[in-house]
Amino acid sequence: MNELAERIRLEGQVLPGGILKVDGFVNHQLDPRLTLEAGQAFARRFRAAGVSDVTRVLTAEVSGIAPALATAAALGVPVVYARKKRPLTMTGAVYSARAVSRTKGGEVELSVSADYLRPGERVLIIDDFLASGKTLLALAEIVRAAGAQLVGVGCLIEKAFEDGRARLAPLGVPVLSLAVIERMDEATLEVRPG
Amino acid sequence: MNELAERIRLEGQVLPGGILKVDGFVNHQLDPRLTLEAGQAFARRFRAAGVSDVTRVLTAEVSGIAPALATAAALGVPVVYARKKRPLTMTGAVYSARAVSRTKGGEVELSVSADYLRPGERVLIIDDFLASGKTLLALAEIVRAAGAQLVGVGCLIEKAFEDGRARLAPLGVPVLSLAVIERMDEATLEVRPG
Repeated sequence: MNELAERIRLEGQVLPGGILKVDGFVNHQLDPRLTLEAGQAFARRFRAAGVSDVTRVLTAEVSGIAPALATAAALGVPVVYARKKRPLTMTGAVYSARAVSRTKGGEVELSVSADYLRPGERVLIIDDFLASGKTLLALAEIVRAAGAQLVGVGCLIEKAFEDGRARLAPLGVPVLSLAVIERMDEATLEVRPG
Repeated sequence: MNELAERIRLEGQVLPGGILKVDGFVNHQLDPRLTLEAGQAFARRFRAAGVSDVTRVLTAEVSGIAPALATAAALGVPVVYARKKRPLTMTGAVYSARAVSRTKGGEVELSVSADYLRPGERVLIIDDFLASGKTLLALAEIVRAAGAQLVGVGCLIEKAFEDGRARLAPLGVPVLSLAVIERMDEATLEVRPG
């Protein structure tokens, strides 16, 4: 997606610790038009990759919600966001898996109510970043535990110099990203459309 | 909004402690069509209430993001979500205010980067619930601190039997809700369109 790559090039900031700050359009402020177009791009590209009959989109709160909602809107299916702290309303059976947050620090437990992820569903996972791949693997583990079928993984921004894509390969599903960071350090930010 | 009221009537669950569980379409799973239509309803109703030239929508993570994004999409303006835990990417000047979470427990500090809330902006606050009004007041305090102008407050679901609306009255702006809970306990759930 050319426009996303261009926004990253223009507005992205590389912070110490290998963190890419894209708070102006992904992680704190959102551009609704860009977000909805990203959802349409995911729908179109997964269709082109042979992914059909998605019944549900799954993501993790917080930053995954916007792109996942946009993708679910384009596909006409519900979206579920895994919670990182179980609220009082999460009663009944729950699937959970552990992940690590780089920008917040520490381990988190992702939880999804069994009410909203049923056996046999065809699930597309959408998130903001593909870096280490650990959050996406935790979501895939939740899909497996629910007896549902993972059909694809999409992320807005992939850090190609980390090993996330290799870690996701055993899942055996298409992994698509809309913008790819080839290289970044405090002096360099090389981005291409995904 | 008739459809939202109907969904609450059909799927809402009253939990002990005065908590309304609407995890199937507001707080854990989202229906993208209903969410986008809620955004259009907010845009239309604030316009009818004389609110014009909104430059930004403000909300609080997590459950405010979806309705705020939908409203911002309908208005064609950016949306900013206040963070409850400052991520490493939140560098530079920050406005913050304290609020209380009923479904998670405890106090939270809401933070918004000064980069995304400028003096002179016309800000519409959107959130999922209006109950005690404390989260919405904290967001209004952030708008004031930024030297921006609050022009309206919208929430998906208002609990009319709590004092949130009275607490927001001194702000002097239109307060709109799309569905109103008149009364609820473990045996009763009285809802009307807002």
